[in-house]
Amino acid sequence: MAQDVKALEAKVKGDFTSFGQTIIQRRSLRSNDVAIDIKYCGICHSDVSMVQWQGAHFPMVPGHEITGIVSAVGAEVTAFKVGDRVGVGCFVNSCGKCAACKAGQEQFCEKGTIVVFDSEDYDGTVTQGGYSQSIVVKDHFVLHIPDQLSLADAAPLLCAGITTYNPLKRYGINETSKVAIIGLGGLGHIAVQFAAKMGAEVTVFGHSESKRDEAHKFGAKSYEILKDLADFKPMAGQFDFILNTLAVNLDLDNYLPLLKLNGVFCYVGIPSEDVHFNLFSLFGNQATVTASSVGGIKMTQEMLDYAAKNDIKPQIEMISINDVSEAYQNILDSKVHYRYVIDMSTLK
Amino acid sequence: MAQDVKALEAKVKGDFTSFGQTIIQRRSLRSNDVAIDIKYCGICHSDVSMVQWQGAHFPMVPGHEITGIVSAVGAEVTAFKVGDRVGVGCFVNSCGKCAACKAGQEQFCEKGTIVVFDSEDYDGTVTQGGYSQSIVVKDHFVLHIPDQLSLADAAPLLCAGITTYNPLKRYGINETSKVAIIGLGGLGHIAVQFAAKMGAEVTVFGHSESKRDEAHKFGAKSYEILKDLADFKPMAGQFDFILNTLAVNLDLDNYLPLLKLNGVFCYVGIPSEDVHFNLFSLFGNQATVTASSVGGIKMTQEMLDYAAKNDIKPQIEMISINDVSEAYQNILDSKVHYRYVIDMSTLK
Repeated sequence: MAQDVKALEAKVKGDFTSFGQTIIQRRSLRSNDVAIDIKYCGICHSDVSMVQWQGAHFPMVPGHEITGIVSAVGAEVTAFKVGDRVGVGCFVNSCGKCAACKAGQEQFCEKGTIVVFDSEDYDGTVTQGGYSQSIVVKDHFVLHIPDQLSLADAAPLLCAGITTYNPLKRYGINETSKVAIIGLGGLGHIAVQFAAKMGAEVTVFGHSESKRDEAHKFGAKSYEILKDLADFKPMAGQFDFILNTLAVNLDLDNYLPLLKLNGVFCYVGIPSEDVHFNLFSLFGNQATVTASSVGGIKMTQEMLDYAAKNDIKPQIEMISINDVSEAYQNILDSKVHYRYVIDMSTLK
Repeated sequence: MAQDVKALEAKVKGDFTSFGQTIIQRRSLRSNDVAIDIKYCGICHSDVSMVQWQGAHFPMVPGHEITGIVSAVGAEVTAFKVGDRVGVGCFVNSCGKCAACKAGQEQFCEKGTIVVFDSEDYDGTVTQGGYSQSIVVKDHFVLHIPDQLSLADAAPLLCAGITTYNPLKRYGINETSKVAIIGLGGLGHIAVQFAAKMGAEVTVFGHSESKRDEAHKFGAKSYEILKDLADFKPMAGQFDFILNTLAVNLDLDNYLPLLKLNGVFCYVGIPSEDVHFNLFSLFGNQATVTASSVGGIKMTQEMLDYAAKNDIKPQIEMISINDVSEAYQNILDSKVHYRYVIDMSTLK
């Protein structure tokens, strides 16, 4: 039977002060569903963007970095049992049959990936996210949280973790790689840890001295502040891989020459303006420009296991459900110290 | 002893009517040099660009698609003997010691690749290209022309051939690949032949009905004329690899969605404007944008052997040395029927 559960919703587009408690319905358990009591939910910059997005529907319950405890499973579920520590990330359904799904790339499902909130599922219902007491999700889209990871730390890994792990794996980063991470925020500080553990020599391109020590703490060998063209020059041809984690506009004609032959510049942060560059910036070193968004379910589980084994975790600031409006504004104002996580026990 | 040889030079920047015969010096044979009697030299769009280029020096002897017969070899040369059929492409020197050179990517030599004309060689002399009777080149940079290839047909392969072969090989094009070639000109008509012989299903994006039959003759399965956004829609997600051979500005936000997941858009033609696109055009399929210029010596030899074995050759229009001015203008006006080759016996 469908269940009424408490949730926090944004009532008005773009208005963070419109957050308020509400009651939403979670569907009755299907044979392959897992019901989860939500303990924590991370806040991601893309939650903020969605509340501001022209195409979004309101009221909306955001949240796509969900961890909790299994409270019930459908008759055919074998991979999970009541009491298991689990997580749910960016998406909760896909066709399972197309080439992308079969390749474990559910995020590119040809029928359309169903994201965890504000997405019309195949049954016509609209998904509601993790700022709530519980959620019901098809077993394929539920992740196991390894024992070594706390549920609070695991939450941001379900988006920020996989978003950075996926491109590093895709491009085979290892102990022979020189990697630069642009930005040391919510995504960047996790990317540095992953790249360093994979054995790469990591440089962080930051914009303030204040983060130099933290960059080293996360595993970076170097921390560079690139202001003028002259700052770029000495680093020409140095990097196999540059990961941009910032949502700011960059002059690629400065960054692309920093790549080695066949190097890769990858966006995970999304700038507001179009990407543009002079083609000679690519011809000089046969570089490639690409982008990456999250990763498939199998890769997400691999990432969680890798993080647990290698003691990789986000820096989190725990907040109450009542602090969400303020947290959103802080994220916009770049005042967040890495990553907010909502303690869902404060939703009463 | 240095030798005086006849050549054709452009005397004035940007003025194609300024071509005229002259005498240039070829250096005396060093121990690892090969002297070549030039029989043919192709004309490439980049020759035309060089004569127009702000940074070029005049008078200039262009030409980087050179074939001929070995007339003498230095004492230490073992790979070539007098009478051999040989070619010289875009570059004639590199350090031989850097990572790029060692990887067979002499075109990215860290000390600076010396191109075949208007380039200051390590000994301080300025290189002079193939619109001349003979040339002296270090053995490492001389290619063997297989018997099955005529010297005239081989000439354009030394630039147009390797420029298209290299990226197709780099991205592993084979019988499972769907490839689109943008443009059916000097580069495009060779790219189609290579891709088709590699087993790919090839689509040509052209702009006039007149080339449809020729596209099929070169091995294309489909020929599409993309004018409106509606023409692009049915082809979304179809291609593993798109090679742009045109020097025109393209709207990448139309082309990138045509790629499959992890597909590649590669420039070999160089548009006049910066490349620009919306990042969501990449996020949708994790596509990459890259560029490719010629290829290393080893790959160039492989390409020549592959072309000979698979009966791949350019469509050429043979011209006299006296027709070069007119040919340049025709190339600029897109009136060339694939590729001009100069019969060097007309240089008298």
